[in-house]
Amino acid sequence: MFLPHNALLIPPPDVSYRQKVPPGLPVHKHPLNPLAFLLRGALIYPDRIAIRHPDVNHPAYYTYSIWAQRVQNLAYALIQFGIKPQDTVAVLAPNTPMIADAFQGIPAARAVICPINTRLTPPEIAYILQHSRAKLILADYEYAHLVKDAEIPVIVSNDSGHAGDPYERFLSRGRMFSQDRGWWGLDLEPDEDAGFALCYTSGTTGRPKGVLTTLRGTYLAAMANAYEAKMDINSVYLWVLPMFHAAGWTYPWAATFAVSTQIILRAVSYPLIWNHLFNSSVTHYCGAPTVQIGLVNYPGVKKLPRPVTAIVAGSAPTAHLISSLEKIGINPVHTYGPFTRNHSQESWAALPMEERAKYMARQGYGYTTADGVRVVYQTEGEDLKDVPRDGKTIGEIVVRGNLVMREYFTDEKATEKAFKGGYFHSGDLAVMYPDGSISILDRSKDIIISGGENASSLAIEQELFNHPDVLEVAVVARAHPKWGERPMAFVVLHPSKAPKWENKHAGFEIDLKAHARKTLPGFATPEWVVVVPDLPKTSTGKIQKVELRKRVTKL
Amino acid sequence: MFLPHNALLIPPPDVSYRQKVPPGLPVHKHPLNPLAFLLRGALIYPDRIAIRHPDVNHPAYYTYSIWAQRVQNLAYALIQFGIKPQDTVAVLAPNTPMIADAFQGIPAARAVICPINTRLTPPEIAYILQHSRAKLILADYEYAHLVKDAEIPVIVSNDSGHAGDPYERFLSRGRMFSQDRGWWGLDLEPDEDAGFALCYTSGTTGRPKGVLTTLRGTYLAAMANAYEAKMDINSVYLWVLPMFHAAGWTYPWAATFAVSTQIILRAVSYPLIWNHLFNSSVTHYCGAPTVQIGLVNYPGVKKLPRPVTAIVAGSAPTAHLISSLEKIGINPVHTYGPFTRNHSQESWAALPMEERAKYMARQGYGYTTADGVRVVYQTEGEDLKDVPRDGKTIGEIVVRGNLVMREYFTDEKATEKAFKGGYFHSGDLAVMYPDGSISILDRSKDIIISGGENASSLAIEQELFNHPDVLEVAVVARAHPKWGERPMAFVVLHPSKAPKWENKHAGFEIDLKAHARKTLPGFATPEWVVVVPDLPKTSTGKIQKVELRKRVTKL
Repeated sequence: MFLPHNALLIPPPDVSYRQKVPPGLPVHKHPLNPLAFLLRGALIYPDRIAIRHPDVNHPAYYTYSIWAQRVQNLAYALIQFGIKPQDTVAVLAPNTPMIADAFQGIPAARAVICPINTRLTPPEIAYILQHSRAKLILADYEYAHLVKDAEIPVIVSNDSGHAGDPYERFLSRGRMFSQDRGWWGLDLEPDEDAGFALCYTSGTTGRPKGVLTTLRGTYLAAMANAYEAKMDINSVYLWVLPMFHAAGWTYPWAATFAVSTQIILRAVSYPLIWNHLFNSSVTHYCGAPTVQIGLVNYPGVKKLPRPVTAIVAGSAPTAHLISSLEKIGINPVHTYGPFTRNHSQESWAALPMEERAKYMARQGYGYTTADGVRVVYQTEGEDLKDVPRDGKTIGEIVVRGNLVMREYFTDEKATEKAFKGGYFHSGDLAVMYPDGSISILDRSKDIIISGGENASSLAIEQELFNHPDVLEVAVVARAHPKWGERPMAFVVLHPSKAPKWENKHAGFEIDLKAHARKTLPGFATPEWVVVVPDLPKTSTGKIQKVELRKRVTKL
Repeated sequence: MFLPHNALLIPPPDVSYRQKVPPGLPVHKHPLNPLAFLLRGALIYPDRIAIRHPDVNHPAYYTYSIWAQRVQNLAYALIQFGIKPQDTVAVLAPNTPMIADAFQGIPAARAVICPINTRLTPPEIAYILQHSRAKLILADYEYAHLVKDAEIPVIVSNDSGHAGDPYERFLSRGRMFSQDRGWWGLDLEPDEDAGFALCYTSGTTGRPKGVLTTLRGTYLAAMANAYEAKMDINSVYLWVLPMFHAAGWTYPWAATFAVSTQIILRAVSYPLIWNHLFNSSVTHYCGAPTVQIGLVNYPGVKKLPRPVTAIVAGSAPTAHLISSLEKIGINPVHTYGPFTRNHSQESWAALPMEERAKYMARQGYGYTTADGVRVVYQTEGEDLKDVPRDGKTIGEIVVRGNLVMREYFTDEKATEKAFKGGYFHSGDLAVMYPDGSISILDRSKDIIISGGENASSLAIEQELFNHPDVLEVAVVARAHPKWGERPMAFVVLHPSKAPKWENKHAGFEIDLKAHARKTLPGFATPEWVVVVPDLPKTSTGKIQKVELRKRVTKL
């Protein structure tokens, strides 16, 4: 046979990245499955670096083909262990290659991944293990003690990548089968609506709930994220966000969809993050506002040599934060869950940065591949009424569509309640502007009713942030004999400004109130200001207003 | 209520871009529907230009909000006319705002769009109208005579956009309802597997077949195309490809997904195309190789001021064409149907352009959101056997997954045959290389069996192209008493080189054969060379080898 081109003899990896198609599937309908991204990446770019884990005793670097092999080994090891389709496998780890493997290998075994927050206490973890019906735990050595009393087996990773590592031994049990059977020996999950990831809420009010997502939802969310953040083959994604946090906002799969490189850091360390931002060609990272605040306030911060895209979500970033990020060359993409995204408008370009940043702090519009977002009145019946687009009337954000969870795991009642009227009720309060974009005002419980007026604690915080000496601030309601409630502000001073106010907190209080009165109406001006060394936060970095409220009631 | 930001009072279009959700849909599963892209674009960027139609007597410019309103009017007009869900509506038009409307408005009425090639004859069109069970035709004035005997109503567009235009009158009938009911009055199609577009094959061998695609398939293909071509809010897509050609390769929806601007040209006019490439900030266009060849050979062609991405599909581009495009600043993205894409590898960067272009001419790997591609032996039973990855063994390309059509419309037997063994059989012959990428050698009928050897006509054409005086070339088999078959080449000379060979075609034949012998084995060297003024082409621009074979049998 005569060939049209000279064959390029790349060392033949003679592997097929194809899973067996279950019988009965129509030719034109393939179940959406995020695992397809990794297999495709490994086929097309086998030698591209998929995983870099540099800042540890045993650094690891895996190409896409090697990583795919490790993932396959893990899948076979899980199946050998006895994991069945839709069983739950828990992972308790900071960002490591193991959890990156797990996010691909557990679905490859058709099981459900349940990533557990490493900052939880042993009883909280025990509750999740029991409630999720986990059959096995993959645990990092640093956190293994938290599950030492678990009633199910624990595979420990020493994060070494070496043969003696228990996790590596586990993988090698799978490797025996993978050599024989390859991807073809792993059944493709035929149901795209099957469970994929099971992430527990932080449960500040009551028991944590298990948010179960599907293959279809994760596939569409990951693809949308890669598109919206413009991630591609040349992107380098830095893991600042813990992967256990809401399954890393689906970026573990967005990164494989884009065939990007992932740099994995065990912990949020600003010196390490800054080092990588400057020296590792990082193009993307995700982080909640608290982390972003830490980042922009790191001593010696300077403008980055190339633009970096930061996906900001988890809670609402302030206008101040957005403009601080832009100043150092970080382009913030502000999203709200996978539900909305802020979209810059051409007309904003002419505005001063502070003004523009206020628009950018809005939650914006329904996300790509999500259905549109609505802001509705809380009605008693099933009917949801949209608030007028006046930028004033408060309603609850509700969403539906492919990026919504399937259910609260084994909790029909909670699911039914959350899905009342055919929409997922977020519990976040917002207004809708005439242009159809939305802005979150508060969690419903964070609104302060001051002299009969609704004051948004978030809006007050935004204004207080603009005081140059404020690093972080949280505002909650405090009972007031005359006005019912009045805002009370808890402030962390900027480290460089703290000495100026040492032993002069009363002076700072006067100064901040004067600042507030310039822009805030009287009922929204904080009645009390207290300087604190730090703010109580949940394990995922959200400010725990419930804690502050407890403090306030004791005053 | 106290607001966190000043409300930006963009003129309130007080429209809701939300369709009514049919009862019974799960909260977390929204039927994929490409119409969602337009609605989202109109909500977020109402004032962005969606449609530009400049080079006509009555130029038209529609913003996303105005265009969405026109689409809504069309949907209501169709429903008022009596169109029911899954009815077929035919469109016979070159690229115009009307066909752009139709690609959105017909699905908005839950009907199936059937775009008809304007180059077909009245009997061919009559066959398609009858076979597709079309209820109505939207026809451009230039082609309305082709359906003057149709038994179903025809709405004619004069492509004027003016009130007196019959098409505009049709729209205004819908407008009466749209003002009352808005998008909310249009039911969302609850089944993502419903029919979406019905495109007929050119039917060179037998009757044309109706390729029926689904909402789901189109949604995933359009999104993949926007991602792979890196189309976004700043993109300007130039319609060089006729939209009726395989539904514009799904770019009508890729462009709305990306909220890009579409520039619409009625015909392939190289002066107009070059004008827009230079002066209209064009970033993307699609075109079959024949159009691309015309483009790079246009007199006075020069390097573009900014990079443009050209999606090349429809048939295999030659290495020569790819390098010609690159030289003038056009970055070719080479795709094969929506099934594969060529992906550049870092290792190619060091290669000379001619060498690199050969790799780029490969069809590559399975497309994003498609399932992987296979090259298989033609077995008698149901079992498909993959060819070895040796770059030598020929097999047929087969595909499955979400980008495959649902069926040949009302032709169960043809569908069953095409889907034998659970894969769509493309009829294209290819090899697979050790790296898993594929290269098309030929349509099965284009292979030349010369002295017992299989010679790829495509491969021979690639080599002949490299002769500097060749503009276009097609190679077919011709019977030979000794060797069974031998290749015969039909050549169109480059206009600038034609004078050199005037009345010296025998000399050119000697020259071309000498060129061929340098790289081709003896059995693949053309035995005969004939210079022709042009090559016979199908209405979609493919070279009609069937025509050339007819000529050859007469020799």
